[in-house]
Amino acid sequence: MNNNEIFASASSWIKEAGERIKESFKTTLNIETKSNANDLVTNIDKETERFFITKIKERYPAHKVLGEEGNGDTLKELSGVVWIIDPIDGTMNFVHQQRNFAISIGIYENGVGKIGLIYDVVHDELYHAIKGEGAFVNNIRLHTLEEATVSQAIIGINATWVTPNRRIDPAVLGALVKDARGTRSYGSAAIEIAQVAAGRLDAYMTLRLSPWDFAGGLVLIEEVGGVASTLKGEPIQLLDENSIFISKPGLHEEILKKYLGNKKW
Amino acid sequence: MNNNEIFASASSWIKEAGERIKESFKTTLNIETKSNANDLVTNIDKETERFFITKIKERYPAHKVLGEEGNGDTLKELSGVVWIIDPIDGTMNFVHQQRNFAISIGIYENGVGKIGLIYDVVHDELYHAIKGEGAFVNNIRLHTLEEATVSQAIIGINATWVTPNRRIDPAVLGALVKDARGTRSYGSAAIEIAQVAAGRLDAYMTLRLSPWDFAGGLVLIEEVGGVASTLKGEPIQLLDENSIFISKPGLHEEILKKYLGNKKW
Repeated sequence: MNNNEIFASASSWIKEAGERIKESFKTTLNIETKSNANDLVTNIDKETERFFITKIKERYPAHKVLGEEGNGDTLKELSGVVWIIDPIDGTMNFVHQQRNFAISIGIYENGVGKIGLIYDVVHDELYHAIKGEGAFVNNIRLHTLEEATVSQAIIGINATWVTPNRRIDPAVLGALVKDARGTRSYGSAAIEIAQVAAGRLDAYMTLRLSPWDFAGGLVLIEEVGGVASTLKGEPIQLLDENSIFISKPGLHEEILKKYLGNKKW
Repeated sequence: MNNNEIFASASSWIKEAGERIKESFKTTLNIETKSNANDLVTNIDKETERFFITKIKERYPAHKVLGEEGNGDTLKELSGVVWIIDPIDGTMNFVHQQRNFAISIGIYENGVGKIGLIYDVVHDELYHAIKGEGAFVNNIRLHTLEEATVSQAIIGINATWVTPNRRIDPAVLGALVKDARGTRSYGSAAIEIAQVAAGRLDAYMTLRLSPWDFAGGLVLIEEVGGVASTLKGEPIQLLDENSIFISKPGLHEEILKKYLGNKKW
């Protein structure tokens, strides 16, 4: 694949989609719930996904598309070129705040991340990475991440994971919250992963994400020397739901060893 | 006091201070810790406070100034006109992120909030309110807050308060985190209170804030019909540290009754 040519298409479409989403602020949203009352989806999520699918299939008929709203292809494996798209990551923020949401695109070739884009629409910040060429925000190069320690780290983690929940004993990450310098939660995984790539968060973790939530971010993180795994320290499976743990180097090892690795959960 | 004239001075100075802070990004920060290793203060916090004190004392020699960094007046009561200033609210964000911090100013006359300003410097968003005249962001009027319920609410709360800590049993607010639609944490009380005023968060709560953290925000909240109290539902003491619970109407009563009011903590 021609990374630069495909990136040019993707970045042009993502900006156009962002403009359409901002236009939608003037109209009334049609909001539905998905798996539970707090899992929201709007007509704009669906329209934005269809916008990308139409553009991609027209320009690159051989490419496949995996999208959150299910209008793309059904994939069992990642051969060829696959676009993994979240039309609006952070739909709850989109509905409640009209900000703090992102369009996320990861473009993979035979399972290898080649291009990542995360567009924070309202703040007009486009994070992008092309494999081997570095990561950027609005075309300004992001620095390689330096090592960090828990005691000086700001961790992106939602309060849900330190209160009783179905997926992890609250004490496991509660100990980390206590020892870290601070925690933040922004409500969009794509933006939170982009903040790690930009060095504004030292780590980000969550118990359940789908491929479209992290596919773009993983390409960014690799280009800045960050570490990405599940919360068990295992490789992330690109076509499955995963727990996700993204971090500066050093800090990743420290958290796995002291907080995650030696407890049963 | 002439609210409009004083507001014009304050908004001019807050923008000038913001420009100086943005300039400082190019230089090396001098970072110290205060009460504990994670309570940071920089030379820019101190310089910004001195900037305001100099301006205020020159233009309004009779006014008093209460500031976070302690260069202002020592106050035992709130007679006359008092400026309550946080030169950088969210110093940890300032240090780690170079964004998501604010300058907060509350101007009180005989203990009554007359003018509030919160300036989100990097996003260039100036929230302000003048008593009786409404609240605004970049001069666009904010709507009066409508009633909300826990099940559809996004609550601003840090994970600290639902992990073991010195101030509250984690189960008290843990139950609220479980029942709410979602939670967020941005790391600047002034910005979080401004988000409630703007309707982007439905409530914000924390166990310990100082007057400079909330003085500006309280004026905003009153102008949009929000409710402000301690977490016990008691009036906030302007010259003391307080727990702070700011919310849309309806939601405030529901949270007090179901989560805070009926438990000993």
